[in-house]
Amino acid sequence: MNNILQHQLNYHIPSLDESVMAVAQQRLDHLTKPQGSLGRLEEIACRLAGIQRKVLPQVARKTVFVMAADHGVTEEKISAYPKEVTAQMVLNFLRGGAAINVLAKQVGAKVIVVDMGVDYDFENQKGLTHAKVAPGTKNFLKEPAMMSEQLNQAIQTGWNLMGEEIERGVDLVAIGDMGIGNTTAASALTAVLCNRDPLEVTGHGTGIGEDARFHKANVIRRAIAARQPDPNDPLDVLQKLGGFEIAGMVGVILRAAQERVPVVLDGFITSAAGLVAYCLEPKLKDFLFASHLSVERGHQVQVEKMGIIPLLNLGLRLGEGTGAVLAMHLLEASCRILSEMATFEQAGVSSADLE
Amino acid sequence: MNNILQHQLNYHIPSLDESVMAVAQQRLDHLTKPQGSLGRLEEIACRLAGIQRKVLPQVARKTVFVMAADHGVTEEKISAYPKEVTAQMVLNFLRGGAAINVLAKQVGAKVIVVDMGVDYDFENQKGLTHAKVAPGTKNFLKEPAMMSEQLNQAIQTGWNLMGEEIERGVDLVAIGDMGIGNTTAASALTAVLCNRDPLEVTGHGTGIGEDARFHKANVIRRAIAARQPDPNDPLDVLQKLGGFEIAGMVGVILRAAQERVPVVLDGFITSAAGLVAYCLEPKLKDFLFASHLSVERGHQVQVEKMGIIPLLNLGLRLGEGTGAVLAMHLLEASCRILSEMATFEQAGVSSADLE
Repeated sequence: MNNILQHQLNYHIPSLDESVMAVAQQRLDHLTKPQGSLGRLEEIACRLAGIQRKVLPQVARKTVFVMAADHGVTEEKISAYPKEVTAQMVLNFLRGGAAINVLAKQVGAKVIVVDMGVDYDFENQKGLTHAKVAPGTKNFLKEPAMMSEQLNQAIQTGWNLMGEEIERGVDLVAIGDMGIGNTTAASALTAVLCNRDPLEVTGHGTGIGEDARFHKANVIRRAIAARQPDPNDPLDVLQKLGGFEIAGMVGVILRAAQERVPVVLDGFITSAAGLVAYCLEPKLKDFLFASHLSVERGHQVQVEKMGIIPLLNLGLRLGEGTGAVLAMHLLEASCRILSEMATFEQAGVSSADLE
Repeated sequence: MNNILQHQLNYHIPSLDESVMAVAQQRLDHLTKPQGSLGRLEEIACRLAGIQRKVLPQVARKTVFVMAADHGVTEEKISAYPKEVTAQMVLNFLRGGAAINVLAKQVGAKVIVVDMGVDYDFENQKGLTHAKVAPGTKNFLKEPAMMSEQLNQAIQTGWNLMGEEIERGVDLVAIGDMGIGNTTAASALTAVLCNRDPLEVTGHGTGIGEDARFHKANVIRRAIAARQPDPNDPLDVLQKLGGFEIAGMVGVILRAAQERVPVVLDGFITSAAGLVAYCLEPKLKDFLFASHLSVERGHQVQVEKMGIIPLLNLGLRLGEGTGAVLAMHLLEASCRILSEMATFEQAGVSSADLE
C-alpha cells in the first residue's frame, strides 16, 4: 500500500451540486426545442453546471496537458516504433507540427507539453514543462515500472501543474499522452483493474500485426504474474505496471476534480489514468468526460467500468489528446445551448400538447 | 413517373477524383502520426479532397439551409406539437434564438432559413428566403401530399438556392429541417424506399408516447396502401408521401453534388431527403456525410441503406441541422490535419520499423 502518498495528497473529491443542476435542467426544459431533444448535449450541460456550480457553465478557457514518458517495456519489442519517437514527437509538439497542435488550435485550447519521464535530455528546451521523474520506467516484465517515491513524485507533479493552471484560470481541461510503449502499460493496468485477460484488452497500438499483439499480451500476462499487483490497490498497480505520464495524469485528474474543473479524457492511455483515479475514488466519474471510442479494444472495457459514454465515433488511435480536444467543441456547444438559446416564453412558441 | 422533372433538372453527378485522393492519402501517410491513426478523419479528408479536387480541401465557407414546411398529415394527430409551431420556430430562427442559430454561430456557418411551404403568411419578413410552394402539403392519408408541379417547383427551388450560394462562394453545406409532422413523412418515405414495415422506421418524433407511435405507424401504413407509391420511383414516393422541405433538400443535394460541394446531413428528416437523392442516383453517397445517429429508429435504416456512417453519438432528435453543424467541426478538423500537420521528414521523426 502507498499510504504515504495517499496521506500526502489528501485529496477530497466534491459532489456535483444537485441544486444548481436542477435549475439548469429547468432552464433546458424551457428552451425552444422539444424537451430532451438535444440528448447528451443536455446531460453534458447539466453535469458541467453541477461541476462548476454555475447555472450557465462556461468552458471558454481550455487547456490540454500532453504528458510524455518512455517505457522500459519497449525492450520487449512491443511497439511498431523505436522509443526515440517519444522525444522526437515532444519536439514536434513544441514546434506545433503534430495533430494535437492543429486540433487544439482549432478549438482554442492551450497545449502544455510535459516531460514526465522521456529518455532524452531536452536541456533548456523552451516551451516544454520540465518534470522528468526519470528517463523512462523500468521494464516491468523484469522489475516494478517505478519506485514508490517516483510514483509519488509523478502524481504530485500532475497535481501541482493542474493547480498552477487553475491559478492562471481554466474552465476545462483535457489530457493527452505520448510515449512509445504506453499502450502496453495501459493494457496491463486495464487487465488488472478490470479483471480481464490481457489479450482481451490488448490492441494493435501504433500498428503492430496480430502476431505481435499476441506477443504483447503475453508480455503483459507474464509481467502481471511476476509483479503480483494488488487489484484492490490502484496505486500498487500503477507503480508496478504504469508509466510516469499516466501517473502524472492521475494527479491532474485528482486536482481538477477537487477544484471542480471538468476533465475530458482522450483514448486508451488517458482512460487508463481515468481508471486508476476512478478506482481510487468512484465519485471521480462525475468529473470525467469520455471524448471518443478508441480503436484499442481495451478502451470499451475502461469506459464501461467507469460508466461513461464516448461522444465521438471516429476510429481514432493516435492519442496526444486529439480526440479530447475534438470533443471540447461538443462540451462548448452544450454550454452555448444553455446560455444562448431562447426560451419558449421569450420566443412566443407553443409547447407540447400531446403525450 | 416524373419524367418532365428529370428532364428539366438534367443533373449530372460527377465521380470523386481518385488521382487527387491518392495524393491526399500519400500526404496523410507521411504526416507525423502512425498511418491511419486518425481513423475516419483521414477518410473524410481524402473524400473531401476527391470531391473538391484539391489535395488540400477546405471548408472555411460554411452554410446551413434550414428548410421549413407544414404537413397536412398533422390532421391525423401524429405530433406532440400543434402545427403553428412550424411558423413560430421559423420566426425564432430569424431572431437567432434557436439551437441551430447557436450551434451554427459556434462553427462559423451562415444560416439560410427557407419557407418551402409553411402554413403562415410571413409577408415581407426580413431575413427569410421566401419560396413557399403552398401553405403545407395535403394530408397524404387522404390524397397525394403534393402535385407533380409542386414537387418540381420544390426541387427546383432547392437546386436554385444552392446554385445562388455557390455563386456567392461556399465550401461546405449542411441541411436542416423544420416542420411539425415531418417525422411522419420521413418515416413513410423510409418505409417505402427501404422496404420496411412502417413501425420499424417510426419513432417518437418530438416526444409522443408509445401508443401514439403505433397510431402514427398505422397512419403511415394506411397511407402507403392508399397512395400506392412506386418504390422504384423515388420522385413518385416523394410526391405522394413527402414534404416541401424534403423536396427542397433533394434539390440542394443534387445541385451541391453536381458542383462538387460536400453535403452534411443532419438526422432523420434530412436523411430522408438524402435517401430520395441516393435512390435517384447512388453515386450521390460520395458527396454525403452523416453527422450523427438520431434517436429516431428509422435513421439507422437510412444510413445503412446509403452506406454512410454517423460521426457523433449524442442521442439528438431535434433537427434544424443541429447535428450537421456540430459535425462541420469534424470535417474542418480533417482538412486542418491534412494542411497543417508536419510530415515525418519535416519533423525529423522516425517512422515505423516493425509490422
